[in-house]
Order: sequence, then C-alpha cells, then structure tokens
Amino acid sequence: MPYFDAASTAPLHPVARQALTAALDEGWADPARLYRDGRRARMLLDAARETAAEVLGARPDEVSFTTSGTQAVQLGVLGALAGNRRTGRHLVHSAVEHSSLLHAAEVHAAAGGEVTEVPVDRLGRVNAARFAAALRPAGVGGVGGVGGGVGGATALACLQSANHEVGTVQPVAEAAELCAAAGVPLLVDAAQSAGRVPVPGGWSLLAASAHKWGGPAGVGVLAVRKGVRYSSPLPADERERGRVPGFVNVPAIVAAAASLRAVRGEAEAEGARLHALVERIRARVPQLVPDVEVVGDPVHRLPHIVTFSCLYVDGEVLLTELDRAGFAVSSGSSCTSSTLTPSHVLKAMGVLTEGNVRVSLPYGAEEADVERFLEVLPEVVGTVRAPLGLDAPPSAASAPAPVLVVNALGRRCPIPVIELAKRIGEVPAGGTVAVLSDDEAARLDIPAWCGMRGEEYAGEAPAADYGGDRGTAYLVVRRG
Amino acid sequence: MPYFDAASTAPLHPVARQALTAALDEGWADPARLYRDGRRARMLLDAARETAAEVLGARPDEVSFTTSGTQAVQLGVLGALAGNRRTGRHLVHSAVEHSSLLHAAEVHAAAGGEVTEVPVDRLGRVNAARFAAALRPAGVGGVGGVGGGVGGATALACLQSANHEVGTVQPVAEAAELCAAAGVPLLVDAAQSAGRVPVPGGWSLLAASAHKWGGPAGVGVLAVRKGVRYSSPLPADERERGRVPGFVNVPAIVAAAASLRAVRGEAEAEGARLHALVERIRARVPQLVPDVEVVGDPVHRLPHIVTFSCLYVDGEVLLTELDRAGFAVSSGSSCTSSTLTPSHVLKAMGVLTEGNVRVSLPYGAEEADVERFLEVLPEVVGTVRAPLGLDAPPSAASAPAPVLVVNALGRRCPIPVIELAKRIGEVPAGGTVAVLSDDEAARLDIPAWCGMRGEEYAGEAPAADYGGDRGTAYLVVRRG
Repeated sequence: MPYFDAASTAPLHPVARQALTAALDEGWADPARLYRDGRRARMLLDAARETAAEVLGARPDEVSFTTSGTQAVQLGVLGALAGNRRTGRHLVHSAVEHSSLLHAAEVHAAAGGEVTEVPVDRLGRVNAARFAAALRPAGVGGVGGVGGGVGGATALACLQSANHEVGTVQPVAEAAELCAAAGVPLLVDAAQSAGRVPVPGGWSLLAASAHKWGGPAGVGVLAVRKGVRYSSPLPADERERGRVPGFVNVPAIVAAAASLRAVRGEAEAEGARLHALVERIRARVPQLVPDVEVVGDPVHRLPHIVTFSCLYVDGEVLLTELDRAGFAVSSGSSCTSSTLTPSHVLKAMGVLTEGNVRVSLPYGAEEADVERFLEVLPEVVGTVRAPLGLDAPPSAASAPAPVLVVNALGRRCPIPVIELAKRIGEVPAGGTVAVLSDDEAARLDIPAWCGMRGEEYAGEAPAADYGGDRGTAYLVVRRG
Repeated sequence: MPYFDAASTAPLHPVARQALTAALDEGWADPARLYRDGRRARMLLDAARETAAEVLGARPDEVSFTTSGTQAVQLGVLGALAGNRRTGRHLVHSAVEHSSLLHAAEVHAAAGGEVTEVPVDRLGRVNAARFAAALRPAGVGGVGGVGGGVGGATALACLQSANHEVGTVQPVAEAAELCAAAGVPLLVDAAQSAGRVPVPGGWSLLAASAHKWGGPAGVGVLAVRKGVRYSSPLPADERERGRVPGFVNVPAIVAAAASLRAVRGEAEAEGARLHALVERIRARVPQLVPDVEVVGDPVHRLPHIVTFSCLYVDGEVLLTELDRAGFAVSSGSSCTSSTLTPSHVLKAMGVLTEGNVRVSLPYGAEEADVERFLEVLPEVVGTVRAPLGLDAPPSAASAPAPVLVVNALGRRCPIPVIELAKRIGEVPAGGTVAVLSDDEAARLDIPAWCGMRGEEYAGEAPAADYGGDRGTAYLVVRRG
C-alpha cells in the first residue's frame, strides 16, 4: 500500500533500524553510570550528539535530546520565555505554526503572557518584514514604551522552517536577521525540513523530530545557542543539560542520529526526485479533478509535500475512500473530526478548507505509485461527489427572485457550499444568494468558493434578516 | 560482565526485543490516522494499554503512556496537585521518594505550595500511621482550620511501593486505606516493583517505568483512577487522554507491555530465586568484610535489591574497583560526585552514607556470579582501604589528654571518619575525641560510625571551642 503521509511520520529508515538493533545491545545501560556498560552508552550518546549537531549546524553542547518533536518545540518556547522573562512577556509566532507550538503559546497566554500571531499570505507564507514589525525590541518596548504593549518587550519569536500542511517554506534567514537586529531570540521549528533541506542558520533555538526524517519515535532535538537565555519549565534534572528529565533513551537517540546523517546524504538527489513527483501532482490534479484548488507556495516549497482541496467534499470521507483505493494520505481539515474545527493553517491562508488532501512523499516513494494515485483520484472524488447531485442542471430560472435564500442552518460543511453550488443557477446574473449557516467553516469556505468560481462574495448579514432563527447569511452575487 | 544494577535499568527482555522488532514493522504509523497502517498502529496501542492495565490493576481508560517513569511521576504529582488545587496546596511525601518525585515537589514548593516530608525509620520504612498523621483532611484543614497550615488541606500524598536504593517495601496498602479515610488522593510510585511484585490496590495515581522491568527506554505508565481530579500541567494535546503531548511511540509501548506481561509470568519463581541470592549477600557480606553495614529492611524488601555501606571507603572508588573486577554495581552515595551530597535516602534512614554499594539483580542473574562477587568483594574493599593505614595499632596511650582534637577541616568524607577511627585508640575509655569537620556528611557519618562501633556519640559543638576556625566539632566518647 503506497504510503503518502511522510509529513505525519516517515517509515523507519533502514539505517535507523540497523543502528537501533545494534544500540539495543551496546547502549542499553544508564549513560550516567561509571561501569563499562554505562561508559559505552555514554560514548554512543556523545557520538550521536555530535552527529546531530553537525547535521543541524549546532555545537554538540548546544544540543539536548528530547522525547519528541512536540516536547522539543514546547520546551523551547516555554524555556526561552522563562529565560527571557525580564525582557518581557511578549511572544510572536506565525499563524501557521504547528499545533504543538500553538498549544505552548496558549499556556503562555493563560499565564498572563501576551501573544501576537503574524498572518500569512494566500500561499501560507510569512512576510519577513511583517514578522519583524510585530517584534518589540527591548530598548523601545516595555509597558507604555514605544511599541510596548501590556506584555512589555518581545521575549521570543517563533517561525517554522516550512509548513507541515502545505509545504510552504518560510523566509527564516531573513526573519532571523531582523530578529537579531531587534535583539529578539528566534525559535525555528524545523520538524518538517530537518534532514530534507539544510536548516538556515541564525536561529537561537531549533526544534526537530526524529520520526519525521526516518528515525524512531521517541526522539526530538532541542538546540539552544550558547548565550541564549533558557530556564527549564520542568522539574530539575541533571540529564541533557538540565532540560529533559528522565532516563536517556540512548538506543533510539543513536538510531535517530544515524538516520539523520543517512538522509542528509541522500537529500539532494532524493529531494530533486520527489520535487519532480510533487510538481507532477501539482500540475495534473487540477486537470484531472474539477473544482479543485492546489494550495501552498508553488515555488518556495518543500520537495515532498503537496496539498489540495476538493470542493463539495468532506475531507474525512475522501481519506476513507482513498484508503480503500490503497493510498495512505492525510488531511489538514476534517469537518467530522472530534473538534469540528477546520485546519488553522488553511484558515490563516484564507483558502478552501473542505475536501483537503495532503500528499507527503517518503524517501523512496515510487513514481508508478504517484501515477496510480493520479489515476485513482478523479474516480474517488467523483464517487464521493456523485450522491450530491451537482451535475444536475440548475432548474431553469423561472421567475427568479432577486434574492434566493438557501437555508443550511444546522448543517455542517461542506453542505452549505454544496447547496450554494447547486442552487446559484436559479438566480440570474446580478442576482444574490443568501446562504444561511451556523457552521463556522462557512465563513471561510463560501468566500473561498466564490474566489475559485468567479462569483462575487458580497459579505455577511445576520441570518435573521433572511428569515433565519440563528446564524449568519453569507451573500453571493452571481456574476454570470 | 555480571550486571548487578537492574534497579538503574534492566537489560532488554527477549520478549521486549521481539515485540519491538515486530512493532517497528506493524506499528510505526500514526495511530491517530484513518488509513490502514494508522488503524493497525491504533489496534496495537489499544492492546498494549489493555495488557499494561491488567497487569497493573487498572482499567485501560485509566492508563496513559508517558515517555519515561520520571515523566509519569512528575505529571502524576503536578497534575494531581493542579487538579486538586481547590482542596489545598499541601503535598505529603515520604523522605525516601525517588529524586524525580522530590524535584516535582520542589516545583510545587517554588510555586508557593506547602510540602511535608514524612521521615522513615532506620530500615528506610515509612510508618503508615505517621504518614497518615501528616495528612490534613479537607474537612478540617484549610488556612487556620484544625490541622490546617498555610497550604490548606492536603491535595496529594505520595508513597513509593518500594525504595529504589535499599529495597525496603513500604506499607502502601495501609497508607492507602488511611488516605482514603482522610479523602486524600494517594500517588504510588511503583517504578521499582512493577513487574516484580504485585502492585497493592488503593492508589489514586500510579507511576511506573518500562525499562526497569525489561522493557525499552522511552516508556512510562501513568494511571489515574476514574474520578480522581487531574489537570495537565503541560500544553494541551489530544493524545493519551490529554496527559502526554507528542507523537505516541507505539513500537516501544508494545514492547513495554509485552515484556511486562512476560516478567509478571516469571515473577513468582524468579523473585524467589533472586530473593535467596540477595539473602545470601545480606548474610555473607558482614562476615566477609569488616566494618560493613547492610542497610534496608531485611524482611519487608524487594527480592532483588541489597545495599551495604563500607566504612572508611569512598563509594565511587569502590565502584571503580568493582568495575575493574568485572562487576557493574551502583551506589546511592558518592562523595566525589558533582553534587557532593550524600544519598538523601541513606541520610533519611540515619545510616552510614559512605562506601555505599547497591547490588540489584536482573532477571536471570546467575548464582555463580553472585558467589564470585562475594569472593571478590573483600579483596576489593581491602585494596581500597589498604592505603589508609587502619590496621596500624593506635599509638600506645601515653599521657592521654582528656580531649583529643582531630582536625579534619577542609577534608571530605570519608576522611573525617577515617581519622576518627585511626586515632580514637589514643584516648582512654571515657575520653573524648572532638572531630572538627566542615563536610556536611560528617554530621551523618560520625554518629553512624559510633552506632556501628559501639562508641558513644556525644553531640556537636562549634569547632571554634576546640581551636577550629570554622565548621563543627563532633564529640565521641570512647567506651572500650
């Protein structure tokens, strides 16, 4: 079964498996102990730290191994904020960071910290100047100072190396320069890019996750540059420079480092190959499937990730059908998930959040499988769309009302958009459709649909103005 | 090389290795995903949770897998304290808990919480009634209330199942009953006993660590009884009941559960065998080595741990020599470690902290190796003691002064005790030796030495009274 969800987790690299097996024999003991087995574990750990540091562009004594990428990000954020508490309590991050980072920011906000979220463009890309404009340098910040806010100066800024949902690469080098100029430490979450593309320098803290590059689960990396203030948010512990309490998992760390070195060796050739496969998907999907939007930056992108959204389709249903057809892919949005919230990344980009599919190719993904995916996809989307009756011609515009009310109250996305698409033909050019909806996703999806279909989105009004007992009316003017 | 440090980490159980290898193939995908590989990982995770729950006496939905035993303990303590904040901010724990728990308690204290440490007897055992007396039930507690203190009522009590340094088993069942009567949740740190002896019921929270029972590193267990209030101290996350952020390490968890079941199956027979080997060590060491104290409860003890202290010897030197002789053992005390603090466990017990050796037998430890250890030990201790000149007879008591001052200022333990032992013969029976020392360990070790040697410890005085420029004078009256 072709596995196209490497951005969630990559299959274990053969080098990782080999190193893990060997290190289970050689590195199982406590590296803090003085006897032979302990000393051997310590040597393996030291060597793994050197390898990881070298590949990531850090010094060995800057690197701590964490128990996951999530822990690396969260310790990085909370540890840097605690270490820079005297500077201020203002945190800046992009709107499209990984949820692990957003959850750490929520902890900061709940504890009285101030958080500024920097928006992205429609391609999911941060503007470095806009990012820098959100910073409050310590010199001019402070409560009531120039650029100051309730949180004082900026204690930390965070920018991912590349987005995990749409593959857009962020301008980290430029942002790092501007942060340095402002004297604000920058945390770079490199979870999606580490091992695949070089990590730009200039970071103050760097976080990465081994299972994303083919290492085992259970290992993350947190690097903190010499001189960057850091204060552990966790209970005291002597291990991993006082940053990560708990027994050090030497075998998994050894495997993580070995596979990081291996994938970096393959990265250039394999990256170019996957880049071309993704280019093919980006080009073909809109030709093969009607009403589809490929999202993310077409130029500044990771080699292996492509994301597209299919109008009128529930993402989860699509994933299930693709699984039946033999393809393991993922979705940034899932209207039927337990949370009922669409992807914050797609939302921040202002693109369609429904029917979203992320294809992320692991090392070694085969061209034939990609071709087969492109063959199968139109059928699968067609099957999911078939019962919606979208192909039925709209009823002839007999005595069209100037405003057609489509009541989708109580119905979850993508129903409101489907109803809109089915019925807009009932109004003449210049006529208006008012879609009544109480699903928050409609606020994003109806304008996005209008953008894709060339219809005019005319704004919102209370649904009560159109006979609804609750919710919002989304007004769409038919262009013709 | 015989490995006698199972209490630090056990060698990987063959079942764990087998399960890990299989689960790296079958359970590597994200268990939150809907496609086949994800569903398979989810099934393996569910099965592992059922196994761990069954062996530990919990319900599957009470069990969260953590990334280490340390994390399990620390989340348990801080999560239960946060969840019971409205009850009060008073925490009770025994004086001999693992350092991971003490470090979590420090975080609580630093945040304004109140902590009561319950002492242990000379065998390292908590008295259940004394433990219960430290509790402040919510009904009568509160600021200024009966039994109340600044921290209000007791939010959490913590008691290990058995001590990690000396093997003493704690009266958990009795303590649990008394906690229940007081309405105080009890956290049991079962890291040293899980998989070896059944966990007594009655706990509200239970913590354990897989690599202590032969599972892989990187897996801990935190079980929280239904109805026990818990509020995560970490950023939000959907995984593991919202308690453990980060990608779930399914292969390691599968291996942890498989080995837990395996060791429980072997526990009775293997426990009896190791119990007998430890009994042999307990009996023989004092016969073979002069001036040695076997510490820990001789009756209420884990099958596999025995600890003894050798007078006049630096623990770290002893470990190094034993390593040279081919034995991997550990020490609760190390006067030359970076911290220079003797083991808090031995200190709380009031026993000798110097020259401490912990032997902890892994499953499958061989009798022949234990016998060889008993052969080698006297030689090794003798070698370490040889340069001290302890065998030289004390100089004949020519015109003995009523008080002999032994100036050991500026010298680390065990030097003050060695000097005392060398020179006490210089005073007649009834004469006093004043040992001047500025090493904190002397406060414990000199009384302990007196207890062992039948001399009378007469208390402390300022060293200045005996000509010292700093430190304390420890007064010893010669009996013999």
